[in-house]
Amino acid sequence: MRKWLAAWFPKYNQDVVLLAVDLVGTFVFAVEGAMTAIRAELDLLGLLVLSFATALGGGVIRDVLIGAVPPNSIRDWRYGATAFAGGGAVFFFYQYVQRVPPGLIVTLDAAGLALFAMAGAGKALEYGIHPLLATLMAAVTGVGGGTVRDVLLAHVPLVLNSDVYASAALAGAIVMLLLLHIKIRRSIAMSCGGVVCFTLRMVAVWLHWSLPKVMVH
Amino acid sequence: MRKWLAAWFPKYNQDVVLLAVDLVGTFVFAVEGAMTAIRAELDLLGLLVLSFATALGGGVIRDVLIGAVPPNSIRDWRYGATAFAGGGAVFFFYQYVQRVPPGLIVTLDAAGLALFAMAGAGKALEYGIHPLLATLMAAVTGVGGGTVRDVLLAHVPLVLNSDVYASAALAGAIVMLLLLHIKIRRSIAMSCGGVVCFTLRMVAVWLHWSLPKVMVH
Amino acid sequence: MRKWLAAWFPKYNQDVVLLAVDLVGTFVFAVEGAMTAIRAELDLLGLLVLSFATALGGGVIRDVLIGAVPPNSIRDWRYGATAFAGGGAVFFFYQYVQRVPPGLIVTLDAAGLALFAMAGAGKALEYGIHPLLATLMAAVTGVGGGTVRDVLLAHVPLVLNSDVYASAALAGAIVMLLLLHIKIRRSIAMSCGGVVCFTLRMVAVWLHWSLPKVMVH
Repeated sequence: MRKWLAAWFPKYNQDVVLLAVDLVGTFVFAVEGAMTAIRAELDLLGLLVLSFATALGGGVIRDVLIGAVPPNSIRDWRYGATAFAGGGAVFFFYQYVQRVPPGLIVTLDAAGLALFAMAGAGKALEYGIHPLLATLMAAVTGVGGGTVRDVLLAHVPLVLNSDVYASAALAGAIVMLLLLHIKIRRSIAMSCGGVVCFTLRMVAVWLHWSLPKVMVH
Repeated sequence: MRKWLAAWFPKYNQDVVLLAVDLVGTFVFAVEGAMTAIRAELDLLGLLVLSFATALGGGVIRDVLIGAVPPNSIRDWRYGATAFAGGGAVFFFYQYVQRVPPGLIVTLDAAGLALFAMAGAGKALEYGIHPLLATLMAAVTGVGGGTVRDVLLAHVPLVLNSDVYASAALAGAIVMLLLLHIKIRRSIAMSCGGVVCFTLRMVAVWLHWSLPKVMVH
Repeated sequence: MRKWLAAWFPKYNQDVVLLAVDLVGTFVFAVEGAMTAIRAELDLLGLLVLSFATALGGGVIRDVLIGAVPPNSIRDWRYGATAFAGGGAVFFFYQYVQRVPPGLIVTLDAAGLALFAMAGAGKALEYGIHPLLATLMAAVTGVGGGTVRDVLLAHVPLVLNSDVYASAALAGAIVMLLLLHIKIRRSIAMSCGGVVCFTLRMVAVWLHWSLPKVMVH
């Protein structure tokens, strides 16, 4: 057990929590991608492709845009392995997975969104991106994977249409950046931003919030 | 006023005209993206996403392809701010914007296409891309944003189907490259190429030109 | 003739066979892209765009992901020229091309897939990508172009749905990597992997193999 763990977490002694949390988010998003694949009647390979794309697409797009190539998920086998594990779990245990209550899935998804958004904003700042665009990168990291998945299925991506989702990522990133601006410690700023993103998303689902539209007559 | 301008144009004293023109093109394309979003009944966030994608998608794809990462529009907040300003203007003043005569929109769009195509070819050359592929990069810069927008809306992109649009960008870029080849000054070569692109596009709209097709029986 | 050849193969005296084979694969995929374009009733420009995207899209995505920018097909005019030659050949000689027996097209396509997959895995390894992800890059190189084509036409990409196609690329890449692992020479490992990929694809077409699915009740 210890040796197996050591293969996954060799030199990340300090950041081991961060990495573990990141992999959990990857797993959750991969599960969602795989469930979409099954509803679209794709075969095993299509399912694995959608798992990978949903879980890691957002981070890949962000890394390509901020110039961090090869992207983390291409450089580090653990991300891909986690995404495929999530997809495989759904493939083999679909009858159990589909009984997971929707409320739990929405909650895990909101947690994954918060995590990915904060990680995205933080990485963009590290690469010297302007704060205005770092908030954008937070949204790209959070919703990019789902967008790639929807484009592959020839759907209009949810992000263009749906209730408060990418907006929650943006709001969380703005809170994080404001806190960093007044010299709050990084770990606290990220936690606060993440809580804002998560809460906003959950409240929006609960109260059926949606963004304003222009009406065409 | 002067201080506010200085935030936008701090160190570009020489290239201030070029930058201003580039931002105007970005604004025009963002307005078009936002109008498409309203016709597709997207909410405010979807509208801003389409504004950004339409205005800056072509340049982002070009920069990623020629290795100029992070792309300009990710590195420099003024492009994103301009795109969102264009989108926001449409959101708040849609009733006025929809009264703009179509002829004016087509003209501004052709001007934006000419500008983006020339800028794209010029930047590709700066990065040491072969002239044959620099003309391709001109077309990618001009039509990439609209293509991303159409893919997000799950439409077949206009560029694959429409009358003379990307072809005008290609023709303008070829003229520019030929003039550069015979040692004409860069600013003149770009202006001539831009005029060719703009004129070709306007004449094509006016005379309903289209490209040949293979008929399938 | 010799001078014309020298423009295409100037400094690749050793790798001349590899390059020639690569260009043949590009030509075959471009022809397939162009035929799809004609069936979708696109005009000449749309046909050339689909030829380029189908033939070179997979390699471009791989190169962007592994950090080999600008991608080969943007840096080297011969790839683009070959893709456009393939598209142009279909445009001008469609009545002859459509009489090519489907079996020959499937065979050439499987050969192109095998070649692109091996080239993709090899290049990923050269750029220091982990073997697990190098096999993914093999699949991306093989099926990426067709996926871009299908997304542009607003179809669900074949790779998500079809019989054994990307799987053949993965299997071939795994064989190649295992052989490299036990210190077999590179050229032999690539040949064996390619043969596995090609054979698997052909047998799958012949016997109507497909991958398992989860049934939704």
